[in-house]
Amino acid sequence: MTLNPTASIMVIGNEILSGRTQDVNINYIAKGLTCSGIKLIETRIIPDDQKIIIKTVNELRAAYDYVFSTGGIGPTHDDITSEAIAEAFGVPNPIHPEISRLLEEHIGKEKYNDAHRKMARFPLGATPIPNPVSVAPGYVINNVYVMAGVPQIMRAMFDQILPTLHHGKPIVSKSWYALHASEGKIAHDLAHIQDQFHNLDIGSYPFYKNEDQNGIALVVKGQDQDAIQRAAQQIHQLFIRMGYDPQEGEPI
Amino acid sequence: MTLNPTASIMVIGNEILSGRTQDVNINYIAKGLTCSGIKLIETRIIPDDQKIIIKTVNELRAAYDYVFSTGGIGPTHDDITSEAIAEAFGVPNPIHPEISRLLEEHIGKEKYNDAHRKMARFPLGATPIPNPVSVAPGYVINNVYVMAGVPQIMRAMFDQILPTLHHGKPIVSKSWYALHASEGKIAHDLAHIQDQFHNLDIGSYPFYKNEDQNGIALVVKGQDQDAIQRAAQQIHQLFIRMGYDPQEGEPI
Repeated sequence: MTLNPTASIMVIGNEILSGRTQDVNINYIAKGLTCSGIKLIETRIIPDDQKIIIKTVNELRAAYDYVFSTGGIGPTHDDITSEAIAEAFGVPNPIHPEISRLLEEHIGKEKYNDAHRKMARFPLGATPIPNPVSVAPGYVINNVYVMAGVPQIMRAMFDQILPTLHHGKPIVSKSWYALHASEGKIAHDLAHIQDQFHNLDIGSYPFYKNEDQNGIALVVKGQDQDAIQRAAQQIHQLFIRMGYDPQEGEPI
Repeated sequence: MTLNPTASIMVIGNEILSGRTQDVNINYIAKGLTCSGIKLIETRIIPDDQKIIIKTVNELRAAYDYVFSTGGIGPTHDDITSEAIAEAFGVPNPIHPEISRLLEEHIGKEKYNDAHRKMARFPLGATPIPNPVSVAPGYVINNVYVMAGVPQIMRAMFDQILPTLHHGKPIVSKSWYALHASEGKIAHDLAHIQDQFHNLDIGSYPFYKNEDQNGIALVVKGQDQDAIQRAAQQIHQLFIRMGYDPQEGEPI
């Protein structure tokens, strides 16, 4: 098995931790990384707190090949990500003249103020990541990618970042599901299938929407296409042997 | 300000990290905790990996008053949470006779097997949390609450846990939003409002759905109802002063 690059996500946002906002960025980043053969190992959601941001980014950037940060790069008082990242890297956080000119042009000379100018501040050594939605860029410094929290902007930034990363061998998957299937009934035989394929991850995911819409999905994941096909075939047979009606793919 | 209890969430799930599944449990727990005056400080999403689970739960239970764990308590080979929790606490993970009888009764004597029996294994000293959806319980050991990952089951468990926790003074909030409002334009005056209310958190959250549906929401959060009303009133006036049309609540 190829050793794929590793990644982590750092979500900075009181609004996620208070329950105000349902995060959707983690899932978007996770999907992109998986398709590119980059293994997402850990995600942390932390508050808008400078000390916690510094500690977290320093832990994650030492432990993983890539760190993706979302949130806290706007112009208001609660946007403290860049200051914290600069502090974590031990570098100043100056105004980037070119980005400042870009923002001034977009906003208008008369309206451009210190709050806007704050969005042109990047840790020294950072490279801007363009923002096609609302101009104020994200940036990359070493292995840390700093993006906006607004999903539409985050996606536009991440879509530009992804092709520039060192990709691993893609992690692919194949799934079968069966309504009313019981995990307990298939667990023994499923473990036996997993034992035959040490280079694959076989996951069992029960779903429960209501009395009618429930069952389990079995997902085979890995890099070896041929092994995935064979394991998925065995899963299909297991479902049938147990008296279930397997469907290919994921339950809706 | 009352010192509210603190909490963390540990989501155990390869399926979240691969992007297969959009987590919705964090948001549900976060909302419940906020209403109960319990401060969620950190959330980690980690893989089905025993060493990582042990390290994470030991870090979180030392740092926060409560730890809420979701996922990995089913009967299949990839369900390793209870083994890891027992190891983290340095206790055995025996079959709980009463829970085993309960499961056997529910599943049927002939069908009841070792995989089912695995769901009756709890770290020694744990107290079961009933599962009204599919019988197999979660449990609490010291300050760690171990719940299922399936949202419907997780919710049923968490709803039983929440009233038993030590509640803090509720954290309440008041929001105003305005379409087409610019963060840069209001940032200076908003910081001035924040400066007057040191016991409140004022957050500025831009939203962007499309060219028409975008703007900012300003959220005042804290424990002092009276201060929240006064800060929200100032925010309302700020929006008007800047030529926007403020709406109460959150943008849809």
